[in-house]
Amino acid sequence: MRAPPVLYILGLLLCSLAVTMLLPAGIDLLWAHPDWKSFVISAGITGGIGALLAIITYSPAPIELDLRQSFLLTASSWVVLPAFAALPLIGVGVSYTDAFFEAVSGLTTTGSTVMSGLDTLPYGILFWRALLQWIGGIGIIVMAIVLLPFLRVGGMQLFRTESSEQSEKIIPKAFHFVAYIAAAYSSLTALCAVSYAAAGMSGFDAICHAMTTLSTGGYSTHDASFGHFDSRTMQWIATFFMISGAVPFVAYIRMIRGDERKIWDDVQIRGLIRFLTSVILVLTVWRVSSANADPFTALTEAAFNVTSVVTTTGFASTDYSLWGPAALGGFLFLTFVGGCAGSTSGGIKIYRFQVLWIVLRAKLRQLMSPNRVVSMRYGSRRIPSDVPEAVLAFLTAFLGTVAVFTFALSLMGLDLITALTASATAITNVGPGLGEIIGPAGNFAPLPDGAKWLLSLAMLFGRLEIFTLLLLLDPEFWRP
Amino acid sequence: MRAPPVLYILGLLLCSLAVTMLLPAGIDLLWAHPDWKSFVISAGITGGIGALLAIITYSPAPIELDLRQSFLLTASSWVVLPAFAALPLIGVGVSYTDAFFEAVSGLTTTGSTVMSGLDTLPYGILFWRALLQWIGGIGIIVMAIVLLPFLRVGGMQLFRTESSEQSEKIIPKAFHFVAYIAAAYSSLTALCAVSYAAAGMSGFDAICHAMTTLSTGGYSTHDASFGHFDSRTMQWIATFFMISGAVPFVAYIRMIRGDERKIWDDVQIRGLIRFLTSVILVLTVWRVSSANADPFTALTEAAFNVTSVVTTTGFASTDYSLWGPAALGGFLFLTFVGGCAGSTSGGIKIYRFQVLWIVLRAKLRQLMSPNRVVSMRYGSRRIPSDVPEAVLAFLTAFLGTVAVFTFALSLMGLDLITALTASATAITNVGPGLGEIIGPAGNFAPLPDGAKWLLSLAMLFGRLEIFTLLLLLDPEFWRP
Repeated sequence: MRAPPVLYILGLLLCSLAVTMLLPAGIDLLWAHPDWKSFVISAGITGGIGALLAIITYSPAPIELDLRQSFLLTASSWVVLPAFAALPLIGVGVSYTDAFFEAVSGLTTTGSTVMSGLDTLPYGILFWRALLQWIGGIGIIVMAIVLLPFLRVGGMQLFRTESSEQSEKIIPKAFHFVAYIAAAYSSLTALCAVSYAAAGMSGFDAICHAMTTLSTGGYSTHDASFGHFDSRTMQWIATFFMISGAVPFVAYIRMIRGDERKIWDDVQIRGLIRFLTSVILVLTVWRVSSANADPFTALTEAAFNVTSVVTTTGFASTDYSLWGPAALGGFLFLTFVGGCAGSTSGGIKIYRFQVLWIVLRAKLRQLMSPNRVVSMRYGSRRIPSDVPEAVLAFLTAFLGTVAVFTFALSLMGLDLITALTASATAITNVGPGLGEIIGPAGNFAPLPDGAKWLLSLAMLFGRLEIFTLLLLLDPEFWRP
Repeated sequence: MRAPPVLYILGLLLCSLAVTMLLPAGIDLLWAHPDWKSFVISAGITGGIGALLAIITYSPAPIELDLRQSFLLTASSWVVLPAFAALPLIGVGVSYTDAFFEAVSGLTTTGSTVMSGLDTLPYGILFWRALLQWIGGIGIIVMAIVLLPFLRVGGMQLFRTESSEQSEKIIPKAFHFVAYIAAAYSSLTALCAVSYAAAGMSGFDAICHAMTTLSTGGYSTHDASFGHFDSRTMQWIATFFMISGAVPFVAYIRMIRGDERKIWDDVQIRGLIRFLTSVILVLTVWRVSSANADPFTALTEAAFNVTSVVTTTGFASTDYSLWGPAALGGFLFLTFVGGCAGSTSGGIKIYRFQVLWIVLRAKLRQLMSPNRVVSMRYGSRRIPSDVPEAVLAFLTAFLGTVAVFTFALSLMGLDLITALTASATAITNVGPGLGEIIGPAGNFAPLPDGAKWLLSLAMLFGRLEIFTLLLLLDPEFWRP
């Protein structure tokens, strides 16, 4: 395999990362906080190494990546970028292990944090954490739309557009698409920030939270997350924009082009909305009848916290783990669901459950009459023949990965609930786990260093849809 | 669907069950315990209803079951037989809920128990519990070898013999096979009983434990299970015979026919032995080095308890949940493994992991070169084209079922560890869970009644390889 083109693009990505580091540096300068220096130093290191890499591997020929190179670039950029994005965090006294964990959690839009005392941190650092999630969010949409359907990972070929069917090479043709998507993403973020500010957030909090809402990331600028604001209006705004971040961004482009009805025609979006609505209503009725809660408060809390977990955002407005064992089981269950493919959210994702349902029903009918041909349709399109197996393989690999990380974490001495929910919340990129340590009111800081490295790897496995990373472990991948 | 032939066979099965109830009645009479009456009354009810059913539905035409009738018979006999097998237990003051749980746990060879004070129970009841597991064991082997390959459940078509390929109807041709298998099963049980007795068990204990060892069931005649005997020799005998119950019984027939080498040639058996050996060695080394345990004691405990969980027997010689969080995670992991297809053991089963490994590797290579055809072989045979999807669908449905039951149990107020491990241990038919209530030193009696009914259903789901029961929930199954 020819590595130079991959290294060249990695070099350019590092240079871009260095430039973005100047933004939080500027913010620290604006508020006259001396921490701007750590951003400038980090930018120097990152930009220097990036430029060196790009210069060494530069070639005048046009860049064309084959399949293996695309896999390598995807996987390595999600490992290398956090390694450098972690540097500025060292400036506020965080160990490199913690900084790497925090940067991976940011760029994968997971939102698990090892940092506390957020309310007193310099604005530059708070902005950097939010920015990482925002960049990670657009990164994953681009990867999901441009790369994964070509790489045929986990049944994503279901979403290949007709125009992309012909080509074997990964061609930058799809990149005009990316401009539209970036525009939709930025506009929604701006709209979200304005709404938050109108509801009473400070300008800085509004911008940071808007960035971590649309990216379904979940970093906050306060230790108490949304609990700090104690505002129902803000929770409803967040609920709306978390869902906006969890629907396929292609739908917005269709909407801009004038196909408004297409949004509700989208089987995935319909599935997500229906699922959220039913879970929220059931939870509200249960809370009102069993805990005698105020109906509107219960509805707000249910809507906000359920949406936060299902869209894999991970904001918390209250410690739902105190709602009793049934709520614990329920939220563990919700952790796995995820939003739509082609969005910023992680998890198993709605369309895989829909395909699973269709496949299992077809399987049952084939058990009854072995010679029958059962046609499988997803919305208006026929499911390609390789999709059922790809989706089933994904589900098995996904749950297997959760099991392996759970076991590995329990080897490090974590109790079973912490090990299981840490593994699940990392691989689904949700953020908070369950139990006293890493629950919605907790923090990942007390975990041993080894567990933090394992969980960083788990977040990457989840974000890269398991197979993209698993592939690199196959010796055959590296054969010439 | 024509139900009468199914009901006719069910009637005959109930009559046979009534006859077997006279065995424990005889034992109680021998020891002059008045509880023999409850067996005779139960036999009367069971035999009466069975005979009535058989007479009403009798038809002189030869019985031939089609595919749907075979599914219905399989599923309904595993529900109806425990419903009657539970009756004698009411005689010792157990509620019907508890009695049904205990009978399902017996016939599915799970081994979870709600009964305590075993050491003081009448011998008839103790023998009945052991006998249920012994009958359930031979029942599941027959089902696995005769029925499931035809029903194509969960990739079992991998084990269709060439001679059975042609036919669409389920023909009693395979039943001469069953005689051989019953002979192997009985001889091994006798050998096991003699070995236990030689090692110092009373004759009664030896016979009961032999029946629950070969069936990988795990019911004991003492509350402390194997801990009661405190004998290393007995633990090694149990380890040997638990493995004997967890290998495909077809292998014994091959051996009788003179193909001794075939045993080690069997990919599944080799996989099981290798897996057990590695886990036992790692656990022993870890226990010796970390807890400073006596090497031979540690080896014995590891061999006995690991084999007990992996073969889905569920005997306990010591409370391994006290070995620390790593052991907890490890034993939860082992709960899912299971023995070989065509044996008495439950769980996911070794061959599915082997097929999964082959399929995932092939999938990864197809991701790298989409046009490549990867041939998949299991041992010396090519994997039929419908097996990968069937195995993946099974794994997904299996883990999904564990998740659904975990959630349902947590709705009943069980804490998350109890809910998760109860669900897992029921569906894998292992027996003990983890946590204070249902751990290896615990008992299922304190659970609420609703949870016991749910877990009875979960044990049936596991024993019937999920799909056999799931199929009955599809409205299309019931259409004429």
